[in-house]
Amino acid sequence: MIIDKLYESVENKGHVCVGLDTSLDYIPKHFMSKFVSEEEALFQFNKEIIDATLDIAACYKVQIAYYEALGISGLIAYKRTLDYIKESKGIIISDIKRGDIAKTAEMYAKAHFEGDFETDFITVNPYMGLDSIEPYLPYLKNKNKGLFALIRTSNQGAKDIEFIETKDNKKVYEAVGEKIHDMGKEFIGGCGYSAIGGVIGCTHVNEAIQLRKVLNTMFFLIPGYGAQGGKAEDVALYLKNGNGGVVNSSRGILLAYRKVGDELNFADCARKEAIRMKEDIMRAVKGI
Amino acid sequence: MIIDKLYESVENKGHVCVGLDTSLDYIPKHFMSKFVSEEEALFQFNKEIIDATLDIAACYKVQIAYYEALGISGLIAYKRTLDYIKESKGIIISDIKRGDIAKTAEMYAKAHFEGDFETDFITVNPYMGLDSIEPYLPYLKNKNKGLFALIRTSNQGAKDIEFIETKDNKKVYEAVGEKIHDMGKEFIGGCGYSAIGGVIGCTHVNEAIQLRKVLNTMFFLIPGYGAQGGKAEDVALYLKNGNGGVVNSSRGILLAYRKVGDELNFADCARKEAIRMKEDIMRAVKGI
Repeated sequence: MIIDKLYESVENKGHVCVGLDTSLDYIPKHFMSKFVSEEEALFQFNKEIIDATLDIAACYKVQIAYYEALGISGLIAYKRTLDYIKESKGIIISDIKRGDIAKTAEMYAKAHFEGDFETDFITVNPYMGLDSIEPYLPYLKNKNKGLFALIRTSNQGAKDIEFIETKDNKKVYEAVGEKIHDMGKEFIGGCGYSAIGGVIGCTHVNEAIQLRKVLNTMFFLIPGYGAQGGKAEDVALYLKNGNGGVVNSSRGILLAYRKVGDELNFADCARKEAIRMKEDIMRAVKGI
Repeated sequence: MIIDKLYESVENKGHVCVGLDTSLDYIPKHFMSKFVSEEEALFQFNKEIIDATLDIAACYKVQIAYYEALGISGLIAYKRTLDYIKESKGIIISDIKRGDIAKTAEMYAKAHFEGDFETDFITVNPYMGLDSIEPYLPYLKNKNKGLFALIRTSNQGAKDIEFIETKDNKKVYEAVGEKIHDMGKEFIGGCGYSAIGGVIGCTHVNEAIQLRKVLNTMFFLIPGYGAQGGKAEDVALYLKNGNGGVVNSSRGILLAYRKVGDELNFADCARKEAIRMKEDIMRAVKGI
């Protein structure tokens, strides 16, 4: 199962998920000027980042919005990026956060689990209910695909809906987490985790301990490290025996060259930041 | 404001929102065989439907998933469909249900409020909170765009999350509806409705009356008529003085030819069904 492959990748390479949320203005000018089109520059920038991080990245998270923003040519760069990660034997999480039901969800499954945009995992938004997840399930069993459902995100606005208190003295995100966790029990791989994972932002210590305990077969996709304030020590609380999650960093890695002031060697700067991050988390994991 | 234009369109043409959720298998074989590519057939089918319904359709809802499922060429057909509706002076709701925050949401705004996929309204998923809506707001003011946020959907699974009971004796969807409604107050047009509308499935009588009362400046996008079981009398309860919402029908219109058994004249069948639906709703609206 794909979740076993991701688990193994974490065992071998660490927890870093390299986020290819590539905005055109992240691409250094000298590099941009080499190419005739934005599409080509976008793809070639990603290719450099992938080449420089392949032995450190547990997986790559590609945020489709950055490509969709450029229309058809952006989506061609998106497709080429996915194809290149596949050729390189990397694991892909397509961060698409789709959420719809019935035949529409089947169409999204078709869009991202086969054809031009085929990927390993997609992120999904569960607001409409479990029947917005069900249409993807045949692909988990038959095509070795996986999901990450939004549970508790790391943004300020999470308080608006995810944090609404329910009659059972829970928060909405806890109720959502439990429902998705239950649904995932049918898809548990040899590693002990389900092919239905959860997006769980790195936030507070108590929350982390509770979520890791309750959602014990759920693999976590953890945003919020670095730029968004999460520390390695916090991240470690979301992991179990040193595995059970990947930690995303996008700008922290893609824009590492700006911090160093070395845009000529942007890919090498990205590599060094990915290694630093990997070791930072490893150290914290061992410290527990 | 775009919401005034939609309101006026309802005044002039009635409440029917023609849903272009065009699956390839909806296209009659004789028509399909005329074209060299799926992309061309998909666009030409939509074009026939648009031409046949332009004077009856308050607006068109284009469900991107059906196009995304066909990869790059599907998205070209999607773009061509949007362009054709614009040329024809129709109003478009792009049913994309995107939901993300910060720079990612800005990218979705860029994707769908300018460039290749520019549209009038998009649907958004509010699960992550109000900061998943905020990045679109500048476009409401400066580019005359609008939103429909998911509030209470008409699927079975709505019970899973939208119906969770909160400590304040509300359901989650009611709390979400009120937050979005408040947010919309800054964007109310001359017609008395906000450019931030809500997706409110056609379901139960009591619910309809309550929602229409509380969310009194929210324009509704109402799915669930016909194929999903909602009747014109139910729909009428979601409208206010005969306006305040559009009612979507996709398969009911696109596949009207199957019911009649006349695939040669699929566009004419679609037109007749749109007229029947328009009159059905009008009759119910006047009956209140």
